[in-house]
Amino acid sequence: MSEKAVVLLSGGLDSATTLAIAVAQGYECHCISFDYGQRHRAEITFAQRLATSLGAVEHRVVGIDIGNFGGSALTDNTIEVPVSGVGDGIPVTYVPARNTVFLAYALGFAEVLSAHEIFIGVNAVDYSGYPDCRPEFIHAFEAMANLATKAGVSGEKIHIRTPLIDLAKEDIIRTGLELGVDYGDTVSCYRLDAEGRACGVCDSCRIRHAGFEKAGIPDPTLYR
Amino acid sequence: MSEKAVVLLSGGLDSATTLAIAVAQGYECHCISFDYGQRHRAEITFAQRLATSLGAVEHRVVGIDIGNFGGSALTDNTIEVPVSGVGDGIPVTYVPARNTVFLAYALGFAEVLSAHEIFIGVNAVDYSGYPDCRPEFIHAFEAMANLATKAGVSGEKIHIRTPLIDLAKEDIIRTGLELGVDYGDTVSCYRLDAEGRACGVCDSCRIRHAGFEKAGIPDPTLYR
Repeated sequence: MSEKAVVLLSGGLDSATTLAIAVAQGYECHCISFDYGQRHRAEITFAQRLATSLGAVEHRVVGIDIGNFGGSALTDNTIEVPVSGVGDGIPVTYVPARNTVFLAYALGFAEVLSAHEIFIGVNAVDYSGYPDCRPEFIHAFEAMANLATKAGVSGEKIHIRTPLIDLAKEDIIRTGLELGVDYGDTVSCYRLDAEGRACGVCDSCRIRHAGFEKAGIPDPTLYR
Repeated sequence: MSEKAVVLLSGGLDSATTLAIAVAQGYECHCISFDYGQRHRAEITFAQRLATSLGAVEHRVVGIDIGNFGGSALTDNTIEVPVSGVGDGIPVTYVPARNTVFLAYALGFAEVLSAHEIFIGVNAVDYSGYPDCRPEFIHAFEAMANLATKAGVSGEKIHIRTPLIDLAKEDIIRTGLELGVDYGDTVSCYRLDAEGRACGVCDSCRIRHAGFEKAGIPDPTLYR
């Protein structure tokens, strides 16, 4: 029997590649996506499709109220998503404690499934300056997770797997293509329109497009 | 201006005492309660009342989908809440990763408020054997929190405050009474009936009642 893994799946390029890697490593993959009032909620539909096409055994959409607190351009319609290029520092698209909340849910789900592996597609190279994408955050979360749960008490070990953490965007894309990811089925844009078309100018679109250029691969993104 | 604190408020004896302590320490208290599909959801009404009577400036109820995963007698109606006495080990009322999820939300809320203090009424003495009530868990969460957030990046420090962690139940009760907590307004029972009356025989009722007995104080709980 395969070992179980929980995979955080947003519908984006990074998490799709992460799922493909987890499947290729032989894990029985249980995916979670979150509906947190994000502007780009169309990504959930993409996630559902990816879970099926990449061979996950299960996909759950968990409704969470993180948008309730505000404080981010991704959940608060009164804050504009920047479109003038990737700047320095922590951008307004940062959602407070988002990866902490996502991983906390994944931890609960892993515990119920008796899974010891949690995959998350964070990346510390071509990322947007979010504090909760750094390796030191992931290590600290893993240490905490092993004290938070039954597994920790019984001496089993929970691992937070971040197969993309050291990869440049172009290497992520190459890895995914080798594993059969169709990036036309993924979305990255923070400002998707109702038809699921990308804006091309938000940070996420810019980082994604540059990745395809550097990889020398045509960008399959549907732009408006 | 007072410093802000986020206080996790369940409507129970411990969190009510924790809120009273945070208010007495001069913090401007922003409370959160969670609606996570718990059987004893009536506690949210008690929490709202306590937030007002104890002087919090705000009370938010956050809907979270943790019950979605199952695995606990508190969120899964097919698992019975034990009534035959407090046993050894981790009981079936343990909700996987509950305090991790609660604290993750509190962290996001703290970040939006620019609060650096998060109060949680965990207790490592008269507790029910939950791994996420232990001091080592709290310390690991705090370390993680300081890497997860903007505050961590800018060098400010987030503190997880656990004023009850070393107190026996009777000492918690004595402390709260000195601070004016009316324990008749708190609920602990996992099996509350529709009128908010306690069962008297679940672990939480037993630990609570023993606390009043040891403190030599009449138990104001409304039993059915």
